[in-house]
Amino acid sequence: MDILKDDERLDYLLAEDLRIIQSPSVFSFSLDAVLLARFAHVPTRASGKIVDLCTGNGAIPLFLSARSKASITAVELQERLAGMANRSVLYNQLEQQINVIQGNVIGIAEKIGYEKYDAVTCNPPYFPAYEATEKNLKEHVAIARHEIHLTLEQAIQSASELLKQGGKAAFVHRPGRLLDIVTAMRANRLEPKRIRFVYSKEGKEANTLLIEGTKDGKPDLKILPPLYVYDNDGNYTEEVRKLLYGEKA
Amino acid sequence: MDILKDDERLDYLLAEDLRIIQSPSVFSFSLDAVLLARFAHVPTRASGKIVDLCTGNGAIPLFLSARSKASITAVELQERLAGMANRSVLYNQLEQQINVIQGNVIGIAEKIGYEKYDAVTCNPPYFPAYEATEKNLKEHVAIARHEIHLTLEQAIQSASELLKQGGKAAFVHRPGRLLDIVTAMRANRLEPKRIRFVYSKEGKEANTLLIEGTKDGKPDLKILPPLYVYDNDGNYTEEVRKLLYGEKA
Repeated sequence: MDILKDDERLDYLLAEDLRIIQSPSVFSFSLDAVLLARFAHVPTRASGKIVDLCTGNGAIPLFLSARSKASITAVELQERLAGMANRSVLYNQLEQQINVIQGNVIGIAEKIGYEKYDAVTCNPPYFPAYEATEKNLKEHVAIARHEIHLTLEQAIQSASELLKQGGKAAFVHRPGRLLDIVTAMRANRLEPKRIRFVYSKEGKEANTLLIEGTKDGKPDLKILPPLYVYDNDGNYTEEVRKLLYGEKA
Repeated sequence: MDILKDDERLDYLLAEDLRIIQSPSVFSFSLDAVLLARFAHVPTRASGKIVDLCTGNGAIPLFLSARSKASITAVELQERLAGMANRSVLYNQLEQQINVIQGNVIGIAEKIGYEKYDAVTCNPPYFPAYEATEKNLKEHVAIARHEIHLTLEQAIQSASELLKQGGKAAFVHRPGRLLDIVTAMRANRLEPKRIRFVYSKEGKEANTLLIEGTKDGKPDLKILPPLYVYDNDGNYTEEVRKLLYGEKA
Protein backbone atom coordinates (compact mmCIF):
# COMPACT_ATOMS: atom_id res chain seq x y z
CA MET A 1 0.00 0.00 0.00
CA ASP A 2 1.27 3.47 -0.86
CA ILE A 3 1.35 5.66 2.20
CA LEU A 4 0.47 8.84 0.30
CA LYS A 5 -2.21 9.43 -2.37
CA ASP A 6 -2.78 12.37 -4.70
CA ASP A 7 -1.87 15.65 -3.04
CA GLU A 8 -1.44 14.16 0.43
CA ARG A 9 1.50 15.19 2.59
CA LEU A 10 3.13 13.60 5.60
CA ASP A 11 3.08 16.38 8.20
CA TYR A 12 4.58 16.46 11.68
CA LEU A 13 2.53 16.44 14.85
CA LEU A 14 5.19 18.59 16.36
CA ALA A 15 4.97 17.97 20.07
CA GLU A 16 4.60 14.24 19.67
CA ASP A 17 7.30 13.18 17.25
CA LEU A 18 4.57 11.61 15.16
CA ARG A 19 3.59 12.07 11.53
CA ILE A 20 0.11 12.57 10.09
CA ILE A 21 -1.16 12.30 6.54
CA GLN A 22 -2.94 15.43 5.40
CA SER A 23 -4.27 16.86 2.17
CA PRO A 24 -5.01 20.51 1.52
CA SER A 25 -7.87 19.58 -0.80
CA VAL A 26 -9.39 16.81 1.35
CA PHE A 27 -8.72 17.40 5.02
CA SER A 28 -6.18 18.90 7.42
CA PHE A 29 -6.64 18.89 11.15
CA SER A 30 -7.25 22.21 12.87
CA LEU A 31 -6.13 23.78 16.12
CA ASP A 32 -9.48 22.64 17.55
CA ALA A 33 -8.31 19.04 17.44
CA VAL A 34 -5.12 19.92 19.31
CA LEU A 35 -7.04 21.86 21.93
CA LEU A 36 -9.56 19.07 22.47
CA ALA A 37 -6.88 16.38 22.69
CA ARG A 38 -5.16 18.41 25.44
CA PHE A 39 -8.35 19.42 27.25
CA ALA A 40 -9.99 16.00 27.54
CA HIS A 41 -9.52 13.84 30.61
CA VAL A 42 -8.61 10.38 29.31
CA PRO A 43 -7.43 7.23 31.04
CA THR A 44 -3.69 6.62 30.68
CA ARG A 45 -3.56 2.96 31.76
CA ALA A 46 -3.35 0.25 29.09
CA SER A 47 -6.70 -1.20 30.18
CA GLY A 48 -8.44 2.12 29.51
CA LYS A 49 -10.75 2.53 26.52
CA ILE A 50 -11.19 5.70 24.52
CA VAL A 51 -13.31 6.48 21.47
CA ASP A 52 -12.75 9.45 19.19
CA LEU A 53 -15.85 10.24 17.15
CA CYS A 54 -15.63 12.20 13.88
CA THR A 55 -11.92 11.52 13.87
CA GLY A 56 -11.23 12.96 10.42
CA ASN A 57 -7.63 12.13 9.52
CA GLY A 58 -7.02 10.83 13.05
CA ALA A 59 -5.26 13.79 14.64
CA ILE A 60 -6.90 13.40 18.06
CA PRO A 61 -6.12 9.66 18.47
CA LEU A 62 -2.53 10.34 17.41
CA PHE A 63 -2.19 13.14 19.96
CA LEU A 64 -3.80 11.01 22.67
CA SER A 65 -1.49 8.07 21.96
CA ALA A 66 1.42 10.22 23.10
CA ARG A 67 0.03 10.61 26.62
CA SER A 68 -2.03 7.47 27.15
CA LYS A 69 -1.52 3.74 26.84
CA ALA A 70 -5.30 3.18 26.58
CA SER A 71 -6.76 1.58 23.49
CA ILE A 72 -8.31 4.13 21.15
CA THR A 73 -11.12 3.50 18.68
CA ALA A 74 -11.37 6.18 16.02
CA VAL A 75 -14.62 6.49 14.09
CA GLU A 76 -14.95 8.34 10.80
CA LEU A 77 -17.85 8.28 8.35
CA GLN A 78 -15.92 9.21 5.23
CA GLU A 79 -13.97 6.39 3.63
CA ARG A 80 -11.33 8.70 2.22
CA LEU A 81 -10.61 10.28 5.62
CA ALA A 82 -10.76 6.98 7.49
CA GLY A 83 -8.19 5.69 5.00
CA MET A 84 -5.88 8.59 5.69
CA ALA A 85 -6.26 8.05 9.44
CA ASN A 86 -5.54 4.36 9.09
CA ARG A 87 -2.43 4.91 6.98
CA SER A 88 -1.15 7.43 9.56
CA VAL A 89 -1.66 4.84 12.30
CA LEU A 90 0.30 2.30 10.30
CA TYR A 91 3.05 4.77 9.46
CA ASN A 92 3.51 5.54 13.18
CA GLN A 93 3.28 1.82 14.06
CA LEU A 94 0.38 2.47 16.41
CA GLU A 95 -1.92 -0.25 15.07
CA GLN A 96 -1.77 -2.04 18.46
CA GLN A 97 -3.26 1.02 20.16
CA ILE A 98 -5.44 2.79 17.60
CA ASN A 99 -8.20 1.09 15.64
CA VAL A 100 -9.75 3.17 12.86
CA ILE A 101 -13.33 2.27 11.97
CA GLN A 102 -15.01 3.66 8.89
CA GLY A 103 -18.65 3.99 9.82
CA ASN A 104 -21.51 6.14 10.95
CA VAL A 105 -21.28 7.81 14.35
CA ILE A 106 -25.05 7.43 14.62
CA GLY A 107 -25.66 4.07 16.24
CA ILE A 108 -21.94 3.31 16.63
CA ALA A 109 -22.45 1.80 20.11
CA GLU A 110 -24.45 -1.00 18.49
CA LYS A 111 -21.30 -1.97 16.58
CA ILE A 112 -18.56 -1.38 19.13
CA GLY A 113 -20.42 -1.77 22.43
CA TYR A 114 -22.68 0.15 24.79
CA GLU A 115 -21.29 1.58 28.05
CA LYS A 116 -17.86 0.02 27.58
CA TYR A 117 -15.69 3.14 27.31
CA ASP A 118 -14.00 5.46 29.82
CA ALA A 119 -13.74 8.51 27.64
CA VAL A 120 -15.08 9.85 24.36
CA THR A 121 -13.69 12.81 22.44
CA CYS A 122 -15.56 14.42 19.57
CA ASN A 123 -14.78 17.34 17.27
CA PRO A 124 -18.08 17.27 15.41
CA PRO A 125 -19.17 19.11 12.29
CA TYR A 126 -19.75 22.72 13.33
CA PHE A 127 -21.78 24.47 10.75
CA PRO A 128 -25.48 24.19 9.91
CA ALA A 129 -26.09 21.92 6.92
CA TYR A 130 -27.69 24.71 4.88
CA GLU A 131 -24.45 26.67 4.85
CA ALA A 132 -22.63 23.88 3.04
CA THR A 133 -24.45 24.35 -0.25
CA GLU A 134 -24.22 28.12 -0.05
CA LYS A 135 -20.50 27.95 0.31
CA ASN A 136 -20.22 25.27 -2.37
CA LEU A 137 -17.43 23.49 -0.55
CA LYS A 138 -15.65 20.38 -1.69
CA GLU A 139 -17.61 17.37 -0.57
CA HIS A 140 -15.12 15.90 1.93
CA VAL A 141 -14.64 19.21 3.67
CA ALA A 142 -18.35 19.96 3.58
CA ILE A 143 -19.24 16.69 5.30
CA ALA A 144 -16.49 17.04 7.89
CA ARG A 145 -17.34 20.64 8.75
CA HIS A 146 -21.12 20.78 8.39
CA GLU A 147 -24.01 19.01 10.06
CA ILE A 148 -24.99 17.17 6.90
CA HIS A 149 -24.78 13.57 8.10
CA LEU A 150 -24.52 14.16 11.85
CA THR A 151 -26.20 16.72 14.08
CA LEU A 152 -24.73 17.88 17.35
CA GLU A 153 -27.47 16.08 19.25
CA GLN A 154 -26.73 12.80 17.46
CA ALA A 155 -23.03 13.10 18.26
CA ILE A 156 -23.80 13.68 21.94
CA GLN A 157 -26.21 10.76 22.05
CA SER A 158 -23.64 8.42 20.56
CA ALA A 159 -20.99 9.60 23.03
CA SER A 160 -23.30 8.91 25.94
CA GLU A 161 -24.24 5.47 24.65
CA LEU A 162 -20.57 4.48 24.51
CA LEU A 163 -19.67 5.66 28.00
CA LYS A 164 -19.66 3.74 31.23
CA GLN A 165 -21.23 5.44 34.22
CA GLY A 166 -18.71 8.04 35.36
CA GLY A 167 -17.07 8.11 31.93
CA LYS A 168 -16.21 11.48 30.39
CA ALA A 169 -17.18 13.00 27.07
CA ALA A 170 -15.32 16.03 25.74
CA PHE A 171 -16.40 18.18 22.80
CA VAL A 172 -15.08 21.19 20.96
CA HIS A 173 -17.60 23.50 19.34
CA ARG A 174 -18.61 27.11 18.82
CA PRO A 175 -19.68 29.26 21.81
CA GLY A 176 -22.89 30.22 20.03
CA ARG A 177 -24.01 26.60 20.42
CA LEU A 178 -23.29 26.47 24.16
CA LEU A 179 -26.95 26.32 25.14
CA ASP A 180 -27.72 23.60 22.61
CA ILE A 181 -24.74 21.56 23.78
CA VAL A 182 -25.49 21.70 27.48
CA THR A 183 -29.17 20.99 26.85
CA ALA A 184 -28.34 17.96 24.70
CA MET A 185 -25.69 16.76 27.15
CA ARG A 186 -28.08 16.85 30.10
CA ALA A 187 -30.79 15.17 28.01
CA ASN A 188 -28.27 12.37 27.39
CA ARG A 189 -27.09 11.93 31.01
CA LEU A 190 -23.85 13.83 30.43
CA GLU A 191 -23.53 16.41 33.22
CA PRO A 192 -21.33 19.33 32.13
CA LYS A 193 -18.39 19.63 34.53
CA ARG A 194 -15.68 21.72 32.86
CA ILE A 195 -15.89 24.47 30.26
CA ARG A 196 -12.99 26.36 28.78
CA PHE A 197 -13.50 29.22 26.38
CA VAL A 198 -10.87 29.93 23.76
CA TYR A 199 -10.27 33.49 22.57
CA SER A 200 -8.30 34.31 19.43
CA LYS A 201 -6.77 37.20 21.38
CA GLU A 202 -7.38 39.48 24.35
CA GLY A 203 -10.38 41.77 24.07
CA LYS A 204 -12.24 39.59 21.55
CA GLU A 205 -15.27 37.39 22.08
CA ALA A 206 -14.62 33.68 22.53
CA ASN A 207 -14.55 31.75 19.25
CA THR A 208 -14.20 28.19 20.55
CA LEU A 209 -15.75 26.20 23.37
CA LEU A 210 -14.23 23.17 25.07
CA ILE A 211 -16.66 21.27 27.27
CA GLU A 212 -16.48 18.02 29.19
CA GLY A 213 -19.23 16.16 30.99
CA THR A 214 -19.46 13.08 33.16
CA LYS A 215 -22.05 10.39 32.54
CA ASP A 216 -24.53 10.47 35.43
CA GLY A 217 -22.29 12.99 37.23
CA LYS A 218 -23.49 15.43 39.86
CA PRO A 219 -24.00 19.08 38.88
CA ASP A 220 -20.76 20.97 39.60
CA LEU A 221 -19.70 23.10 36.68
CA LYS A 222 -16.33 24.85 36.60
CA ILE A 223 -15.43 27.60 34.14
CA LEU A 224 -11.70 27.23 33.59
CA PRO A 225 -9.32 30.12 32.89
CA PRO A 226 -9.62 31.47 29.36
CA LEU A 227 -7.20 30.27 26.68
CA TYR A 228 -5.79 32.88 24.31
CA VAL A 229 -4.46 31.67 20.97
CA TYR A 230 -2.56 34.75 19.76
CA ASP A 231 -0.76 37.52 21.60
CA ASN A 232 -1.01 41.16 20.62
CA ASP A 233 1.77 40.73 18.05
CA GLY A 234 -0.18 37.99 16.25
CA ASN A 235 2.10 35.18 17.47
CA TYR A 236 0.89 32.08 19.28
CA THR A 237 0.77 32.58 23.03
CA GLU A 238 3.17 30.62 25.18
CA GLU A 239 0.38 28.30 26.29
CA VAL A 240 -0.61 27.43 22.71
CA ARG A 241 3.02 26.97 21.68
CA LYS A 242 3.37 24.44 24.47
CA LEU A 243 0.22 22.64 23.34
CA LEU A 244 1.48 22.52 19.78
CA TYR A 245 5.19 22.00 20.20
CA GLY A 246 5.57 20.63 23.70
CA GLU A 247 7.56 21.88 26.66
CA LYS A 248 10.52 22.62 24.41
CA ALA A 249 8.92 25.88 23.30
CA MET B 1 -36.27 61.67 59.23
CA ASP B 2 -32.76 60.88 60.30
CA ILE B 3 -30.69 59.86 57.33
CA LEU B 4 -28.60 57.34 59.26
CA LYS B 5 -29.74 54.70 61.78
CA ASP B 6 -27.73 52.56 64.21
CA ASP B 7 -24.36 51.60 62.71
CA GLU B 8 -25.16 52.86 59.21
CA ARG B 9 -22.56 54.84 57.27
CA LEU B 10 -22.85 57.18 54.33
CA ASP B 11 -20.37 55.72 51.83
CA TYR B 12 -19.29 57.07 48.46
CA LEU B 13 -20.20 55.45 45.18
CA LEU B 14 -16.86 56.59 43.93
CA ALA B 15 -17.25 56.87 40.19
CA GLU B 16 -20.62 58.53 40.40
CA ASP B 17 -20.23 61.30 42.94
CA LEU B 18 -23.16 59.79 44.82
CA ARG B 19 -23.52 58.58 48.38
CA ILE B 20 -25.05 55.34 49.62
CA ILE B 21 -26.19 54.30 53.09
CA GLN B 22 -24.57 51.06 54.20
CA SER B 23 -24.28 49.09 57.40
CA PRO B 24 -21.65 46.50 58.18
CA SER B 25 -24.13 44.50 60.27
CA VAL B 26 -27.13 44.75 57.92
CA PHE B 27 -26.04 45.12 54.30
CA SER B 28 -23.27 46.53 52.16
CA PHE B 29 -23.25 46.29 48.39
CA SER B 30 -20.69 44.05 46.77
CA LEU B 31 -18.54 44.24 43.67
CA ASP B 32 -21.20 42.09 41.97
CA ALA B 33 -23.62 45.01 42.04
CA VAL B 34 -21.05 47.28 40.40
CA LEU B 35 -20.27 44.70 37.75
CA LEU B 36 -23.94 44.09 36.94
CA ALA B 37 -24.75 47.82 36.78
CA ARG B 38 -21.93 48.25 34.24
CA PHE B 39 -22.68 45.10 32.28
CA ALA B 40 -26.42 45.57 31.75
CA HIS B 41 -27.77 47.24 28.64
CA VAL B 42 -30.30 49.81 29.85
CA PRO B 43 -32.21 52.56 28.06
CA THR B 44 -30.75 56.03 28.64
CA ARG B 45 -33.68 58.14 27.45
CA ALA B 46 -36.04 59.71 30.01
CA SER B 47 -38.98 57.69 28.65
CA GLY B 48 -37.15 54.39 29.34
CA LYS B 49 -38.24 52.15 32.19
CA ILE B 50 -35.93 50.00 34.27
CA VAL B 51 -36.61 47.67 37.21
CA ASP B 52 -33.95 46.49 39.64
CA LEU B 53 -35.08 43.37 41.50
CA CYS B 54 -33.52 42.38 44.85
CA THR B 55 -32.13 45.89 45.06
CA GLY B 56 -30.74 45.57 48.60
CA ASN B 57 -29.59 49.02 49.69
CA GLY B 58 -30.12 50.34 46.17
CA ALA B 59 -26.59 50.30 44.80
CA ILE B 60 -27.58 49.26 41.28
CA PRO B 61 -30.28 51.93 40.79
CA LEU B 62 -27.86 54.56 42.09
CA PHE B 63 -25.15 53.42 39.68
CA LEU B 64 -27.63 53.31 36.80
CA SER B 65 -28.91 56.81 37.54
CA ALA B 66 -25.48 58.14 36.65
CA ARG B 67 -25.66 56.89 33.09
CA SER B 68 -29.37 56.87 32.30
CA LYS B 69 -32.26 59.29 32.50
CA ALA B 70 -34.76 56.40 32.50
CA SER B 71 -37.10 55.92 35.43
CA ILE B 72 -35.94 53.16 37.75
CA THR B 73 -38.13 51.05 40.02
CA ALA B 74 -36.18 49.30 42.77
CA VAL B 75 -37.80 46.31 44.48
CA GLU B 76 -36.64 44.94 47.83
CA LEU B 77 -38.39 42.43 50.07
CA GLN B 78 -36.78 43.47 53.34
CA GLU B 79 -38.21 46.59 54.96
CA ARG B 80 -34.93 47.50 56.61
CA LEU B 81 -33.00 47.37 53.31
CA ALA B 82 -35.75 49.09 51.32
CA GLY B 83 -35.63 51.86 53.93
CA MET B 84 -31.88 52.27 53.48
CA ALA B 85 -32.30 52.37 49.71
CA ASN B 86 -35.06 54.95 49.97
CA ARG B 87 -33.05 57.20 52.27
CA SER B 88 -30.08 57.01 49.89
CA VAL B 89 -32.36 58.07 47.03
CA LEU B 90 -33.59 61.03 49.05
CA TYR B 91 -30.08 62.00 50.16
CA ASN B 92 -28.96 62.08 46.52
CA GLN B 93 -32.15 63.92 45.48
CA LEU B 94 -33.00 61.22 42.98
CA GLU B 95 -36.61 60.70 44.03
CA GLN B 96 -37.82 61.90 40.62
CA GLN B 97 -35.93 59.06 38.95
CA ILE B 98 -35.77 56.17 41.42
CA ASN B 99 -38.81 54.70 43.14
CA VAL B 100 -38.06 52.18 45.89
CA ILE B 101 -40.80 49.61 46.50
CA GLN B 102 -40.72 47.34 49.52
CA GLY B 103 -42.34 44.14 48.37
CA ASN B 104 -41.98 40.59 47.15
CA VAL B 105 -40.22 40.00 43.84
CA ILE B 106 -42.55 37.05 43.30
CA GLY B 107 -45.60 38.41 41.53
CA ILE B 108 -44.21 41.96 41.38
CA ALA B 109 -45.52 42.46 37.82
CA GLU B 110 -49.06 42.24 39.17
CA LYS B 111 -48.35 45.34 41.24
CA ILE B 112 -46.20 47.43 38.91
CA GLY B 113 -47.28 46.18 35.49
CA TYR B 114 -46.72 43.31 33.05
CA GLU B 115 -44.56 43.84 29.96
CA LYS B 116 -44.08 47.54 30.59
CA TYR B 117 -40.32 47.68 31.11
CA ASP B 118 -37.30 47.96 28.81
CA ALA B 119 -34.72 46.44 31.12
CA VAL B 120 -34.52 44.48 34.35
CA THR B 121 -31.42 44.00 36.46
CA CYS B 122 -31.24 41.46 39.27
CA ASN B 123 -28.52 40.46 41.72
CA PRO B 124 -30.47 37.66 43.36
CA PRO B 125 -29.72 35.62 46.47
CA TYR B 126 -26.92 33.25 45.49
CA PHE B 127 -26.70 30.49 47.97
CA PRO B 128 -29.00 27.53 48.55
CA ALA B 129 -31.42 28.15 51.41
CA TYR B 130 -30.06 25.21 53.42
CA GLU B 131 -26.67 26.88 53.75
CA ALA B 132 -28.17 29.87 55.56
CA THR B 133 -28.98 27.98 58.75
CA GLU B 134 -25.70 26.11 58.72
CA LYS B 135 -23.79 29.34 58.59
CA ASN B 136 -26.09 30.92 61.16
CA LEU B 137 -25.94 34.28 59.47
CA LYS B 138 -27.65 37.41 60.62
CA GLU B 139 -31.17 37.44 59.25
CA HIS B 140 -30.90 40.43 56.89
CA VAL B 141 -27.77 39.09 55.29
CA ALA B 142 -29.12 35.56 55.15
CA ILE B 143 -32.24 36.65 53.27
CA ALA B 144 -30.32 38.87 50.90
CA ARG B 145 -27.69 36.24 50.08
CA HIS B 146 -29.61 32.96 50.23
CA GLU B 147 -32.55 31.55 48.32
CA ILE B 148 -34.83 31.60 51.36
CA HIS B 149 -37.65 33.77 50.04
CA LEU B 150 -36.77 33.77 46.35
CA THR B 151 -35.36 31.07 44.12
CA LEU B 152 -33.37 31.79 40.99
CA GLU B 153 -36.25 30.51 38.87
CA GLN B 154 -38.73 32.84 40.57
CA ALA B 155 -36.44 35.82 40.05
CA ILE B 156 -36.11 34.99 36.35
CA GLN B 157 -39.85 34.53 35.95
CA SER B 158 -40.54 37.91 37.54
CA ALA B 159 -37.97 39.59 35.30
CA SER B 160 -39.60 38.10 32.22
CA GLU B 161 -43.09 39.13 33.31
CA LEU B 162 -41.97 42.74 33.67
CA LEU B 163 -40.25 42.99 30.28
CA LYS B 164 -41.66 44.15 26.99
CA GLN B 165 -40.85 42.01 23.96
CA GLY B 166 -37.25 42.79 23.08
CA GLY B 167 -36.53 44.00 26.61
CA LYS B 168 -33.34 42.86 28.33
CA ALA B 169 -32.80 41.11 31.64
CA ALA B 170 -29.34 41.00 33.20
CA PHE B 171 -28.32 38.82 36.14
CA VAL B 172 -25.19 38.26 38.18
CA HIS B 173 -24.69 34.83 39.72
CA ARG B 174 -22.22 32.01 40.30
CA PRO B 175 -20.78 30.07 37.33
CA GLY B 176 -21.83 26.79 38.94
CA ARG B 177 -25.44 27.80 38.33
CA LEU B 178 -24.91 28.60 34.64
CA LEU B 179 -26.93 25.65 33.41
CA ASP B 180 -29.82 26.36 35.80
CA ILE B 181 -29.85 30.01 34.76
CA VAL B 182 -29.88 29.44 31.02
CA THR B 183 -32.49 26.71 31.37
CA ALA B 184 -34.76 28.95 33.46
CA MET B 185 -34.18 31.92 31.15
CA ARG B 186 -35.19 29.96 28.07
CA ALA B 187 -38.19 28.53 29.91
CA ASN B 188 -39.24 32.12 30.58
CA ARG B 189 -38.75 33.49 27.03
CA LEU B 190 -35.44 35.16 27.89
CA GLU B 191 -32.92 34.14 25.23
CA PRO B 192 -29.35 34.39 26.58
CA LYS B 193 -27.37 36.79 24.37
CA ARG B 194 -24.26 37.89 26.29
CA ILE B 195 -22.24 36.14 28.97
CA ARG B 196 -19.18 37.51 30.71
CA PHE B 197 -17.21 35.45 33.19
CA VAL B 198 -15.39 37.21 36.00
CA TYR B 199 -12.15 35.75 37.36
CA SER B 200 -10.61 36.88 40.64
CA LYS B 201 -7.23 36.66 38.89
CA GLU B 202 -5.44 35.03 35.99
CA GLY B 203 -5.13 31.27 36.13
CA LYS B 204 -8.12 30.80 38.46
CA GLU B 205 -11.57 29.43 37.66
CA ALA B 206 -14.32 31.98 37.11
CA ASN B 207 -16.14 32.97 40.31
CA THR B 208 -18.85 35.21 38.90
CA LEU B 209 -21.16 35.08 35.92
CA LEU B 210 -22.79 38.04 34.21
CA ILE B 211 -25.55 37.10 31.79
CA GLU B 212 -28.06 39.07 29.76
CA GLY B 213 -30.97 37.82 27.72
CA THR B 214 -33.55 39.37 25.43
CA LYS B 215 -37.24 38.61 25.78
CA ASP B 216 -38.31 36.58 22.74
CA GLY B 217 -34.87 37.16 21.19
CA LYS B 218 -33.28 34.94 18.57
CA PRO B 219 -30.54 32.52 19.66
CA ASP B 220 -27.19 34.25 19.21
CA LEU B 221 -25.01 33.89 22.28
CA LYS B 222 -21.74 35.80 22.65
CA ILE B 223 -19.10 34.99 25.26
CA LEU B 224 -17.46 38.31 26.04
CA PRO B 225 -13.80 38.71 27.00
CA PRO B 226 -13.05 37.63 30.56
CA LEU B 227 -12.94 40.21 33.33
CA TYR B 228 -10.16 39.91 35.91
CA VAL B 229 -10.69 41.58 39.27
CA TYR B 230 -7.16 41.48 40.71
CA ASP B 231 -3.74 41.58 39.10
CA ASN B 232 -0.88 39.36 40.17
CA ASP B 233 0.08 41.84 42.91
CA GLY B 234 -3.40 41.61 44.46
CA ASN B 235 -4.46 45.09 43.31
CA TYR B 236 -7.60 45.82 41.31
CA THR B 237 -6.99 45.57 37.58
CA GLU B 238 -7.20 48.73 35.52
CA GLU B 239 -10.57 47.65 34.14
CA VAL B 240 -12.08 47.16 37.60
CA ARG B 241 -10.60 50.43 38.84
CA LYS B 242 -12.36 52.17 35.97
CA LEU B 243 -15.64 50.47 36.82
CA LEU B 244 -15.31 51.46 40.47
CA TYR B 245 -13.73 54.88 40.25
CA GLY B 246 -14.45 56.03 36.71
CA GLU B 247 -12.13 57.13 33.96
CA LYS B 248 -10.13 59.22 36.40
CA ALA B 249 -8.29 56.09 37.57
